[in-house]
Amino acid sequence: MLDNKLWLVYITSPMQAKKRNIKLVIEYDGTNYRGWQSQSGNHVTVQETIMDAIKQITGERVILYGAGRTDSGVHAIGQTASFYSRTKIPPERLRAALNSNLPKDISIRSVEYMKSSFSAQFQVKSKTYCYTILNTEFPSALMRNFSYHVSKVRLDTKKMKQAARHLVGTYDFRSFASASRKKENWVRKIYSITIARDKGIIKIVVRGNGFLYNMVRNIVGTLILAGKGSMKPEAIKEILKLKDRRKAGPNVPPQGLCLMKVEY
Amino acid sequence: MLDNKLWLVYITSPMQAKKRNIKLVIEYDGTNYRGWQSQSGNHVTVQETIMDAIKQITGERVILYGAGRTDSGVHAIGQTASFYSRTKIPPERLRAALNSNLPKDISIRSVEYMKSSFSAQFQVKSKTYCYTILNTEFPSALMRNFSYHVSKVRLDTKKMKQAARHLVGTYDFRSFASASRKKENWVRKIYSITIARDKGIIKIVVRGNGFLYNMVRNIVGTLILAGKGSMKPEAIKEILKLKDRRKAGPNVPPQGLCLMKVEY
Repeated sequence: MLDNKLWLVYITSPMQAKKRNIKLVIEYDGTNYRGWQSQSGNHVTVQETIMDAIKQITGERVILYGAGRTDSGVHAIGQTASFYSRTKIPPERLRAALNSNLPKDISIRSVEYMKSSFSAQFQVKSKTYCYTILNTEFPSALMRNFSYHVSKVRLDTKKMKQAARHLVGTYDFRSFASASRKKENWVRKIYSITIARDKGIIKIVVRGNGFLYNMVRNIVGTLILAGKGSMKPEAIKEILKLKDRRKAGPNVPPQGLCLMKVEY
Repeated sequence: MLDNKLWLVYITSPMQAKKRNIKLVIEYDGTNYRGWQSQSGNHVTVQETIMDAIKQITGERVILYGAGRTDSGVHAIGQTASFYSRTKIPPERLRAALNSNLPKDISIRSVEYMKSSFSAQFQVKSKTYCYTILNTEFPSALMRNFSYHVSKVRLDTKKMKQAARHLVGTYDFRSFASASRKKENWVRKIYSITIARDKGIIKIVVRGNGFLYNMVRNIVGTLILAGKGSMKPEAIKEILKLKDRRKAGPNVPPQGLCLMKVEY
């Protein structure tokens, strides 16, 4: 990964300037992938799979920069990514070619030519994630890969909303970041959290300017504690202040999470 | 399979009378099964898988009679089935035990003790199926196993509704039955067909007193012809009259179909 400054050098280099800068909007079922991108490189990732399809079509070994590094098992409806290419295939035809070359659990929703200065990774204004909880006594065969089953208690969404309210705004979210590095900047802004129940299905939609590692899943785990009544909604304020991961709730499993939208 | 008369002898026999008659409501993802029940017995079926779980729990090798013999790849949210057992496990606990013993793509929504005369197979008053069409230019990774992708034409749901209207009622549906046997009774009653589009997703819900082999999928294939404009909606009347499978539209693929509900 290039950092912000190297990126500017990279995109303004004469080599890249001759190429097209192509933005993809991507949907995937993360069940069978080691996330968007893997540390070790020994696993099948969504990024690698799409890069392989691009090579099949254009003959080029490109680097595909994604907006969000979704974890193993996490899904996306609106992941975005961009890459430079010499291809002259029109966007509509490139989308069709990519979809024919990709496995069926990855699909390209749109292909767009961008200005050469556009970066899917570094110019994100907001990301929206949705987490789905199945709050029923019995499990669901059809939703097993797309929800987290909470069966023993009926969650009180009123309390979850009260707790969520304290997270909206600009805060140091260190208490909600797994395995954070020491020098990291933990300040993020959450624009909104909406929580809605439809029968047994609870959807938690979080929109923010960026998210720390596991931040959405740690937030959901904490909201569940409030919904179960084992934590007061106001306790969130204290948790934020303590800047200690151990004070917040547990990390909920990945399959309930879906990256819905990335805005620029 | 027992026919109707043999069933009456079976359930009134002293051997069965001592047992409990247990009704299950079952949800499954049919992707990895050879349907509810297989002819050859060499494949993994939903019925066999549940019978194995019952044996694990009760020690009995029961026969599980299902309401609908869904095909390979077809899903269910509300399949029903019943079996006789000597078990005394209360319904709630039996449900939990079954769900623990079943693979995650099959789940038991409810367990209920019934009168010994109840039959999930022979006392059906109505079945409701839903067929999902994805009518978008690009495929969907998340819906790939739960929809049929029609990408090249925008389907006109008004025309599909006009065509569907001619199928509601009591008719000889031979034109919509795949591989029907000669002496079969092809008369069925369709109570309603509703068609709704939400963005690119079209849902066709068909409720009837019973369905011939592949009938829902053949109906949907014919409605798609009307939606594409390659068949007039009124042509349905003629197709019904001709009683000839070759006159109706093609059989659409199984993964779009889901058995929603069985009523008694």
